[in-house]
Amino acid sequence: MKIIIDAMGGDHAPHAPVEAAVKAVKELGVEIILVGVTDVLKKELSGYDYPKDKISIAHADDVISNHEEPAKAVRNKKNASVVVAANMLKNGEGDAMLSMGNTGALLASGLLIVGRIKGVLRPALATLLPSAKGPKMLIDAGANTNCKPENLVQFAIMGSIYMKNVLAIESPTVGLMSNGEEEGKGDELTKETFPLLKNAPVNFIGNIEGRDVMEGTADVITCDGFVGNVILKTVEGMGHVVSQNVKGIFTKSLFTKIGALFVMNGLNEFKQTMDYREYGGAPLLGTKRPVIKGHGSSDSKAVFSAIYQAKKFVETNVIDEIVKNISGMEEKKNG
Amino acid sequence: MKIIIDAMGGDHAPHAPVEAAVKAVKELGVEIILVGVTDVLKKELSGYDYPKDKISIAHADDVISNHEEPAKAVRNKKNASVVVAANMLKNGEGDAMLSMGNTGALLASGLLIVGRIKGVLRPALATLLPSAKGPKMLIDAGANTNCKPENLVQFAIMGSIYMKNVLAIESPTVGLMSNGEEEGKGDELTKETFPLLKNAPVNFIGNIEGRDVMEGTADVITCDGFVGNVILKTVEGMGHVVSQNVKGIFTKSLFTKIGALFVMNGLNEFKQTMDYREYGGAPLLGTKRPVIKGHGSSDSKAVFSAIYQAKKFVETNVIDEIVKNISGMEEKKNG
Repeated sequence: MKIIIDAMGGDHAPHAPVEAAVKAVKELGVEIILVGVTDVLKKELSGYDYPKDKISIAHADDVISNHEEPAKAVRNKKNASVVVAANMLKNGEGDAMLSMGNTGALLASGLLIVGRIKGVLRPALATLLPSAKGPKMLIDAGANTNCKPENLVQFAIMGSIYMKNVLAIESPTVGLMSNGEEEGKGDELTKETFPLLKNAPVNFIGNIEGRDVMEGTADVITCDGFVGNVILKTVEGMGHVVSQNVKGIFTKSLFTKIGALFVMNGLNEFKQTMDYREYGGAPLLGTKRPVIKGHGSSDSKAVFSAIYQAKKFVETNVIDEIVKNISGMEEKKNG
Repeated sequence: MKIIIDAMGGDHAPHAPVEAAVKAVKELGVEIILVGVTDVLKKELSGYDYPKDKISIAHADDVISNHEEPAKAVRNKKNASVVVAANMLKNGEGDAMLSMGNTGALLASGLLIVGRIKGVLRPALATLLPSAKGPKMLIDAGANTNCKPENLVQFAIMGSIYMKNVLAIESPTVGLMSNGEEEGKGDELTKETFPLLKNAPVNFIGNIEGRDVMEGTADVITCDGFVGNVILKTVEGMGHVVSQNVKGIFTKSLFTKIGALFVMNGLNEFKQTMDYREYGGAPLLGTKRPVIKGHGSSDSKAVFSAIYQAKKFVETNVIDEIVKNISGMEEKKNG
């Protein structure tokens, strides 16, 4: 299996993707294609010992920065690393692609170059969030705003397939993010979506609320990408503030530092379960081939997790099953 | 000043409202009218020592539970404590009202009985959230779904007046909750709201994101009530999970309990800054007289904070200023 990595995107590129690639070819039995400036990547790789035939470099001398208009940049910058990577994926030169760069550019590359699965109205970004009951999926986490009820239903179906195949959850529960648990609660979008989800081929458990995100009430949380993005960033921001404050408390004095020694193990364990780096990247679901977005601030550990996830994404035939289920829906509609 | 309290609503009623009322008449120089079943309230009060002329009881023998359809219940249950309280407020028998009961019933009572300020399209629930930079306002936190751009602008104006008067912030900054910081980011609603806020009489700082909630980037966060409710409950849920886990870590063994002693002070201080009970209730902004929603799980400390807030709400003439600003807008529009 070959994973294509945009090695120029993200806060710690190219160091983090290169280090993760070396670890991945040794431990995961995959091959890696690093896409980026050849000289830079060769130099970065020269510091590592690894099986040389397992990592190759595809040259791309441009990048799309976080400040560019994504769709326009993807159309104009033919030599940008993410564009080159997407074209290679499309042409079958690899089995999945991964980028830590500009999210919009990756989404645009997925849509415009890799292409949508027939019948999928809008591909969605699916993020795994930590919860009291293990990782749960938030879909859409930000690819689409102003969604229609049909979009949310497809997100629920695609998310369920991913959770079943990649995370081995037998019958993933689906919750519809709303402002109250009762069936009548919600805005226009969720009120119209509710009856559709009841009849969809998913394990729908009804409306859920914001507090259910961290409680882990549902395996798949379906919502508009605007709402999903707000949830994702609220959780990230709160995690940051809490962890900064706790750190400040523990390092305040010699006295508190001693106290910290007693509880550090437990706190680190908890921090680890809440660490996005453990959960790999966010799959873009609904494209013809596997596309994964790694967090922009990913270190090599996080990139490695994302490569591991890309491998599972390919191995467990998520896309074939999405094709089957979504075209099944289309047939029902037309028949 | 007289504060009317629905003494039958909330998880800890009537104990918490009664205990808080006793403390408030002693420490805040206010009078309290407790609304509820006279016998029950008399019995509850009999355990306390307080100036008898400062607390009176208004009889109401019905309640609206959390499972009833709010507007219908408010119309039908004339003797429900929240309905009696709202009618007393309307008739000038008190200066503000407070309820810890069914949120929908309080909103409906505010709208249908107390009434909207002329020109206010939709009153909004405004919640104070803890942040790294002190309490910030989230408006609308759940009173309205499917808002229009004009609603969000009015929320920003009303929220700014409240933060200026009650929290003494000179020129409160306003952020528009969106899925990206750049002006072009957002859904249809926020994209249309952005230029209106630029021209509104508020200190608008542009789009903000979920992570800005806890960072405390803006004093007033304006958004649709669906989004606000999701944010509020996501933060509450995460606070609960984190605090449960940290507690579990500290009480795991004798060893960790010893460690806890060293850092407990700092952690408790931090917990206190993150404690909703310190921030009082959520004002409903846009009604003709002050209406405040206390958290359903409020203990007597939280009810006391809410009474304190109600007092400041009245004292600082928030409503007069809203009237002036919103009717000012109307004139400009018509002129």
